[in-house]
Amino acid sequence: MAMQNYFDYAATCPMSELSIRSYAKAASEYPFNPSSKHRGGREAHKALEEAREKCARVLSVMPEQLVFTSGATESISMVFESLLWQKKPGRVIISRIEHDAVKSFIPLLKEKGWDVVQLKAKDGIVKAEDVKAALTEETRLVSIMSVNNVNGAVEDVNAISAVIREYEKSLKHRIIFFSDSVQALGKVGLSLSESGIDAASFSAHKIGGPRGVGMLYVRKKELIRSLAPAGGQEGGMRGGTENLASIISFSDALEDIYHERAEKEKRMAALNKRLREGLSEAGLLINSPDGASPYILNVSSPLPSEVFTRMLDDRGFSVSSGSACSNNARKGENIIEVMGYGRERAMSSIRISMFDSTSEKEVEDLIATVKEMKSEF
Amino acid sequence: MAMQNYFDYAATCPMSELSIRSYAKAASEYPFNPSSKHRGGREAHKALEEAREKCARVLSVMPEQLVFTSGATESISMVFESLLWQKKPGRVIISRIEHDAVKSFIPLLKEKGWDVVQLKAKDGIVKAEDVKAALTEETRLVSIMSVNNVNGAVEDVNAISAVIREYEKSLKHRIIFFSDSVQALGKVGLSLSESGIDAASFSAHKIGGPRGVGMLYVRKKELIRSLAPAGGQEGGMRGGTENLASIISFSDALEDIYHERAEKEKRMAALNKRLREGLSEAGLLINSPDGASPYILNVSSPLPSEVFTRMLDDRGFSVSSGSACSNNARKGENIIEVMGYGRERAMSSIRISMFDSTSEKEVEDLIATVKEMKSEF
Repeated sequence: MAMQNYFDYAATCPMSELSIRSYAKAASEYPFNPSSKHRGGREAHKALEEAREKCARVLSVMPEQLVFTSGATESISMVFESLLWQKKPGRVIISRIEHDAVKSFIPLLKEKGWDVVQLKAKDGIVKAEDVKAALTEETRLVSIMSVNNVNGAVEDVNAISAVIREYEKSLKHRIIFFSDSVQALGKVGLSLSESGIDAASFSAHKIGGPRGVGMLYVRKKELIRSLAPAGGQEGGMRGGTENLASIISFSDALEDIYHERAEKEKRMAALNKRLREGLSEAGLLINSPDGASPYILNVSSPLPSEVFTRMLDDRGFSVSSGSACSNNARKGENIIEVMGYGRERAMSSIRISMFDSTSEKEVEDLIATVKEMKSEF
Repeated sequence: MAMQNYFDYAATCPMSELSIRSYAKAASEYPFNPSSKHRGGREAHKALEEAREKCARVLSVMPEQLVFTSGATESISMVFESLLWQKKPGRVIISRIEHDAVKSFIPLLKEKGWDVVQLKAKDGIVKAEDVKAALTEETRLVSIMSVNNVNGAVEDVNAISAVIREYEKSLKHRIIFFSDSVQALGKVGLSLSESGIDAASFSAHKIGGPRGVGMLYVRKKELIRSLAPAGGQEGGMRGGTENLASIISFSDALEDIYHERAEKEKRMAALNKRLREGLSEAGLLINSPDGASPYILNVSSPLPSEVFTRMLDDRGFSVSSGSACSNNARKGENIIEVMGYGRERAMSSIRISMFDSTSEKEVEDLIATVKEMKSEF
């Protein structure tokens, strides 16, 4: 499968050669169950903890704050399902632009008597003052993503955290601030320890690691109660035999993406700037705010999303008409519309997403192709 | 890591060379998101459905009855968490010898007002008449594993199913019969379509496939309501980007284990018989009933489990003092004691588990080593 002219990295970032090698090596070197007590099991357990330490080092957190999961969806589910344990339902504040993995909990929470408040997010930005206004004594959880997956908008999690912590002072309970950080990992600055975030979800396959593995960061494990501790793995937070080969491969991919981070970000910012210029010249409208993640650019053409996407596909360019996940759901809101860009623009929006491996040539070719296509608009 | 003299296959079966190659090949060939609509995404989607069809063919079920998950623990959780949706709690019947992944739901269910009945299982066998006696109008779920993971006891799921279906005739609702079938897959005869089982959980890494992938068989999807449909993958049953490389590798491992099944079972039966004889001669007591899975043999020595396990480990043999998962939990019941073998025997029990790759020589060496160790008893 040719990966050239692939501009759908926000859907999945193909597993790098490094990650594939790391996986195969780990599967051979540590074939045993990390929970087994024999020598092979102990060696596997040691390798597991070393991978956790590597991830913790990269993210500047403590190893015990990281729980390996099967992916971001599971990490998100752990946070929301944890609410189901609570005897008395309360309020949950989320934004209207969260990923479906978060939004899919809305009906369940409502069914269980929870009061779910969905905040607007003009241009993809959730205002801390809106969070503040929504806070009540009954609030148990605030869920605002770090970087939006559709237009790359970067949320001010520090400001949101600050209003929560301030409000909380008058309460006897903690309000959990959860931030789905899948599109932030290794792509925009994110300081877990300084942000005041209580919990965050991550996925390996968005940074070139394997699918089927992710992480949940939890500041203090007591904040989340696991529904399925099963065999007690991951400090009782997540049952199931640890997916060691994937975890080791993930830790290697994470280390790799943070290598020479500053230069990568500088380069990506330049590519994003060029893409904004070039596609604007071609008559496209930009649906990503200033300061958005350089890895994601959302644009609208005069054609319906599906048509434009297919035309690009025919020319060898892979882009997305939304999030890949929302392709399955079909129904549901169009996130670009929710962000206030208008219905027409929303129905013709496409997402272009890049990775560190995206070349200048690919970007120039995409711009040139869109300019050529202009005659068909 | 030397895999020779590894007798802990029930904890995890090292990923086979075939599975590692299959994984790496699939990760390269189908790097894209099966939910993406561009060409690469469509090819990935096709490969996903082909893998599902391959698994369905091997198991003689319909492809739409198989949901790929992150492993057996998640498959089990899906069934139990589905109960949490129900407005009115009822009765759940499980056996006392279920895996921790099942048992860990007992406190949650009780907290939510469910009446959880735990059936005894002498020698590891749950009697259909005990299931019958426990059935009430309020019963919603019966969870009895297919093959016990500690001593290999094979449950009579057909008889259990028959009593449930008979009782159900007088009810307006269906009683879900769930069977955790991790240790049955590819190891003992298991006919999902004929057994009357409504749902069953499977794991890839117990048959030489990758960790982090498993399956949930559901006769009719309506029987289970997913707590986390997220992006709507897997027919709305299981959200999250599909772990395609692992799924393809799993399907290959599954096909492989069912290849020349009859001969493999005959050979394994002979190995098991030899092991029973040899270890009995060495003075060990057998804690697995006649008719148990030939892949698992539980025995007791005159020494505490940990001591005997460590002595074997020092001599290069990997066995287990219980299930690997229960090593983390620590507390909890000893399954061999629960089965009625007596406390003393339970505290000195070890699990020896084999795979098709286990050689006659390994078995003879294990027997000879235990006989030599006898002087130290």
